Amino acid sequence: MNVLLVYAHPESSSLNGSLKNFSVKHLEDAGHKVQVSDLYAMQWKAILDADDSTDRQPGARFDPSLDSKRAFENGTQSQDIALEQDKLRWADAVILQFPLWWFSMPAILKGWVERVYAYGFAYGVGEHSDTHWGDRYGEGMLAGKRAMLVVTTGGWESHYGPRGINGPIDDILFPIQHGILYYPGFDVLPPFMVYRTSRTDEARFSKICDELGQRLDDLWKTAPIPFRPQNAGAYAIPELTLRSDIAADQYGFDAHIARGG
Amino acid sequence: MNVLLVYAHPESSSLNGSLKNFSVKHLEDAGHKVQVSDLYAMQWKAILDADDSTDRQPGARFDPSLDSKRAFENGTQSQDIALEQDKLRWADAVILQFPLWWFSMPAILKGWVERVYAYGFAYGVGEHSDTHWGDRYGEGMLAGKRAMLVVTTGGWESHYGPRGINGPIDDILFPIQHGILYYPGFDVLPPFMVYRTSRTDEARFSKICDELGQRLDDLWKTAPIPFRPQNAGAYAIPELTLRSDIAADQYGFDAHIARGG
Repeated sequence: MNVLLVYAHPESSSLNGSLKNFSVKHLEDAGHKVQVSDLYAMQWKAILDADDSTDRQPGARFDPSLDSKRAFENGTQSQDIALEQDKLRWADAVILQFPLWWFSMPAILKGWVERVYAYGFAYGVGEHSDTHWGDRYGEGMLAGKRAMLVVTTGGWESHYGPRGINGPIDDILFPIQHGILYYPGFDVLPPFMVYRTSRTDEARFSKICDELGQRLDDLWKTAPIPFRPQNAGAYAIPELTLRSDIAADQYGFDAHIARGG
Repeated sequence: MNVLLVYAHPESSSLNGSLKNFSVKHLEDAGHKVQVSDLYAMQWKAILDADDSTDRQPGARFDPSLDSKRAFENGTQSQDIALEQDKLRWADAVILQFPLWWFSMPAILKGWVERVYAYGFAYGVGEHSDTHWGDRYGEGMLAGKRAMLVVTTGGWESHYGPRGINGPIDDILFPIQHGILYYPGFDVLPPFMVYRTSRTDEARFSKICDELGQRLDDLWKTAPIPFRPQNAGAYAIPELTLRSDIAADQYGFDAHIARGG
């Protein structure tokens, strides 16, 4: 299978760099094809702006959505954006690997999402009507592909537990896993987390690699997070609120996951 | 009072640009001093990397935390970072204004947080012991100051409601309001949200300005979100989990807010 690893850490000799190298070798040894978008090494342009298309009139008002739509339709996107979209089309599975900085992905990776996720590619896809609010949340151009986060953090696992001070890790990652990955169609696997990164000696690194290797071996076997698809009846359209008989009395992120299904 | 407005939108003639101009004028007319960090106009460097300090040895391994600590302590941070820290010290209130892109802040603003929030300035502050896990979540260098988000989104308010498909807006913003603003000490006011931005005619714009103006008038009167301080007894240290008698049986983001207090 084809795996795209999008990786965001500024230091190749870091724990993140070592885990990235491990993943590439492990996947290749298993017979998969791997491409890596090493965003720092590529000096990825993080800022979404008017320079992201090649056909814009000088002085014209810049509209982030409509300019993205026009450039995607006309084939006038910046080359770096089009190349990343080609990698996404090629991939059967996508891994986003990053250190958790201020409870989200590093800016360089956020900028990869903002620029590569063009209008017509990752949003604004499909019919928008009173019964079908676009191909999104379970449908879309990336449907049929799998995605997984690999995330490191200095904090302790308990700090990210159900009653931990930072909030539960699943909720912290919901805007990424649901809002960035499930939205354009990915099946999203549970994240692979590494906590308390400053305490990583050789023995622990070896154990982390064993666990990560298992997750990579299971990339096509692990059950995805059962997010509810938007257009299959669970939501009223266009309000896009859960129908009253779905997860009755529940609210918040967790209501959008079909537990025990 | 002194207000810092950190603003992230690429087009000055956008709704965001108009709201930013409105806020500046409204605050100045009320006698406040205002500084604006217009990140796109400043061509703010979004990427945290080894170039963020001036005294790094060529070829040395880059450690995002430890290099930030050294540069902050030694006064060898990049000038752009030190200037933004000075603005934060100067400010009595800070407003972060941005369009919600993929359920978070634009990359350029995330990069502002990552670079300006140095080790020793916004984290790694205060005693770390078995009874006091750093000055954070209610304590820290920015304690005594107020912060508020002004956020625009194309989606409908119902999409961000308690059972809306995107998840509740308060939960989507929790990693920012709690994790980025409350963490270094800010008192965080409820956000000012503008939904369905594509439907903004003159009458609606005028109404939005009236409501935003009221929020700005009330900047020092509005009750902050009652997040629970870390070191005041609600959390076990060092596990940093809520003690069993606090918000018993609750879990998730909401447990960290002292309702009805």
